[in-house]
Amino acid sequence: MSVQVRLAKNSGFCFGVKRAINLALDAAEKHDKIVTLGSIIHNPQMVHKLEKLGIYSVEDVKKIKNQATIIRSHGIPKDIFDYLKSLNIDIIDATCPYVSKTQEYGKKLSEEGYPIVIMGDKDHPEVIALKSYLKAEPIIVKNADELEYRKFNKVALLSQTTKNIEEFKKIMLKLLDMSQEVRVINTICNATDVRQKSTKELAEESDIMIVIGGKNSSNTKMLAKISAKIIETFHIEEASEIQKEWFIGKKKIGITAGASTPDWIIVEVYNKIIEIVGDSSMFVESIEQIPV
Amino acid sequence: MSVQVRLAKNSGFCFGVKRAINLALDAAEKHDKIVTLGSIIHNPQMVHKLEKLGIYSVEDVKKIKNQATIIRSHGIPKDIFDYLKSLNIDIIDATCPYVSKTQEYGKKLSEEGYPIVIMGDKDHPEVIALKSYLKAEPIIVKNADELEYRKFNKVALLSQTTKNIEEFKKIMLKLLDMSQEVRVINTICNATDVRQKSTKELAEESDIMIVIGGKNSSNTKMLAKISAKIIETFHIEEASEIQKEWFIGKKKIGITAGASTPDWIIVEVYNKIIEIVGDSSMFVESIEQIPV
Repeated sequence: MSVQVRLAKNSGFCFGVKRAINLALDAAEKHDKIVTLGSIIHNPQMVHKLEKLGIYSVEDVKKIKNQATIIRSHGIPKDIFDYLKSLNIDIIDATCPYVSKTQEYGKKLSEEGYPIVIMGDKDHPEVIALKSYLKAEPIIVKNADELEYRKFNKVALLSQTTKNIEEFKKIMLKLLDMSQEVRVINTICNATDVRQKSTKELAEESDIMIVIGGKNSSNTKMLAKISAKIIETFHIEEASEIQKEWFIGKKKIGITAGASTPDWIIVEVYNKIIEIVGDSSMFVESIEQIPV
Repeated sequence: MSVQVRLAKNSGFCFGVKRAINLALDAAEKHDKIVTLGSIIHNPQMVHKLEKLGIYSVEDVKKIKNQATIIRSHGIPKDIFDYLKSLNIDIIDATCPYVSKTQEYGKKLSEEGYPIVIMGDKDHPEVIALKSYLKAEPIIVKNADELEYRKFNKVALLSQTTKNIEEFKKIMLKLLDMSQEVRVINTICNATDVRQKSTKELAEESDIMIVIGGKNSSNTKMLAKISAKIIETFHIEEASEIQKEWFIGKKKIGITAGASTPDWIIVEVYNKIIEIVGDSSMFVESIEQIPV
């Protein structure tokens, strides 16, 4: 059998990331001085590309004076948003609409008196932003195991948009043992779920999986975790990290990529692998040509 | 090993049934003409006992003219309640407070625009009564398998109070695949849950189980079903149904009883079994003396 290199369906940029980057590119044409508050996405290569266009990332909001400011897809805490508004600068809000929706749900449920459980990483910018819309401190857990028993009358459950639905269900079940009312809002982005399922399916049909995305990208790490449970998996950020030895004896090579991984990196990785495994019958220039 | 006869913990009357019967007995002292609308509980023996006190069951509300009327623990539909009020008779509302609470939840969620899923038997009086408080036709399913796929934006889940929590969880999980928001109110009475768990535990330690309760009692049938999955099980209404052959070679005999089973019947059954299995070392006169 010849070597087969396939890309998982629904790999790469999601709707929210595409939108944020388009907003940033548009803004770069209109403004001389422009920054993003924090990296626009968790992908160093994309951040580098934006820098070439004059869009720099600023970590500390206090350093923003008179620059137009892009709010990245993860969103930012309410008080920082309010502070930016007080500066009378142009604000380009590229918060993912699904993330904004989660913030709205959190705000509403919190106002209705629900204690809020969030499935997410407590240090993730999306979760930090979501927290700021709540009236009381939420319970933040990465998984069902982390959720300690306590008694509620009612409780609401939300999720960081890039988390796993199966773990979400486990938390929901556990909450029903703790509370008479459990109000669950599935704020997991469908793109995340679909991407995870496609990754799992491809991993099941592969001898090796290459997961492409920022090493600090939460959703890419989740893809790597899902894949690693099934088959040997390497998580890389770019083509240069690929090692020939990985592919010795492998016949079915699978590739997947996180929501913040630009297409050109996926194409580079694909072509590099094709080069290594010696199959030069195909030459791929854009992601649309890669067989899924 | 000698023969052991044990009663499941939490067998027999629940809070709501005890309350309804006490209300009926009190009412019988105050009123000459008194009826219950439908059998007060699903237990023929108890119904017979009340008849001796002059409390008769009436199935058709139109036959009630000037009698004081007891509303049984299952509750009644809103329009029938309103009709009774229009008769200007004494109404003794013995609806179980947990059932009333479920009706309130149903009403509130329905007014808030939630499509309602009810886990229950569509012909059960409690479910028929609950339905009458909803603005739109609910989806009534006995179990998760019966729930057909459809798409909701939001959906609420309630249960007949005497149903099984594990099946409820399955329905909840299934609904999360159909709706972004799933609002779950666990209206399963804790007594039901505790009784089912005790029955399961005892069945696991027994060679045979005797389940006592009305053949038309929903919660008793559920106990019989849970028990039958584990060990040979007989569902009886009273001691006279017991057959000696059942106990041949059995060393560990378990007894459990539904929420509408009076204590005196449990005691009769216990004593009859003790008589059959030949262990006369104990003589039980009240339920408190039966070993659990």
